[in-house]
Amino acid sequence: MPTHTFATAPPLDVLIVPGGTGTRAANVTVGPAAFVRQRYPELKYLMSVCTGAAILAQSGVLDGRRATTNKAAFAWVKTQGGAEIEWVPKARWVVDGNVYTTSGVAAGMDGTYALVREIYGEEVSRRVADNVEYERHTDSSWDPFSDLYNLTNVAVNGGP
Amino acid sequence: MPTHTFATAPPLDVLIVPGGTGTRAANVTVGPAAFVRQRYPELKYLMSVCTGAAILAQSGVLDGRRATTNKAAFAWVKTQGGAEIEWVPKARWVVDGNVYTTSGVAAGMDGTYALVREIYGEEVSRRVADNVEYERHTDSSWDPFSDLYNLTNVAVNGGP
Repeated sequence: MPTHTFATAPPLDVLIVPGGTGTRAANVTVGPAAFVRQRYPELKYLMSVCTGAAILAQSGVLDGRRATTNKAAFAWVKTQGGAEIEWVPKARWVVDGNVYTTSGVAAGMDGTYALVREIYGEEVSRRVADNVEYERHTDSSWDPFSDLYNLTNVAVNGGP
Repeated sequence: MPTHTFATAPPLDVLIVPGGTGTRAANVTVGPAAFVRQRYPELKYLMSVCTGAAILAQSGVLDGRRATTNKAAFAWVKTQGGAEIEWVPKARWVVDGNVYTTSGVAAGMDGTYALVREIYGEEVSRRVADNVEYERHTDSSWDPFSDLYNLTNVAVNGGP
């Protein structure tokens, strides 16, 4: 259940933008992307999960940055941003400055543990994962799904 | 947001009982465990995640069965059921008849993919995981957390 609207959202340190079919709705450039663009300057960290990267791309925040997204939706997400974005086809997640973009759905877990490590250190990140019996992928270049969706040998900014 | 109460819940094919601090609430034997006991005969499959196994243990459904649960809470969960339960200290998940019990939080994902495989076959289970870019653990005996929480060499039904 939403607790705030874009108009009433409190100050934020971290903004995580999820993906899903909602990112393909006709009105997303009006709402979420504008919110990301407006709030980015105050954020300590911005993260997207899966096709949430489309919102970040639309916001302009990814211009001049490296980023990744869901591998099955890679081609579509690329159309949502400008040519200044360097899309990385083989990555569990990508960090560029304070912007974390993660690959499909489950990759959001690994990207989040990487962000927890960045903020609180490896010991805390590992302990949180151990508490929920989750085996993290700690190598951001681990990405069998890039091969699965035939993206691995595609040139950056080229391909499908 | 709950959509039904125990009194108004519709007929169910699959019942998944999550864990969490709510399982330690004083009233759980009155509500969830009674619901599990009442509904089990109509279910095709019953599953617990994490300390949700405590609810199953309290319900009596696990009596005479093999089961597992969260490894950090293993000793406590064991106190919630009778001596007829064979607790398995090293398992990502355990299947006994139509009852799936999974280990801590994240193990619920692997147990669920195992259930999807049981119902719909390996191809569907793999495809769903690929869609969300999740790397399943398909070996139910994979369980580094049993070692981490010093349960591996504990005799079944003995130990902490």
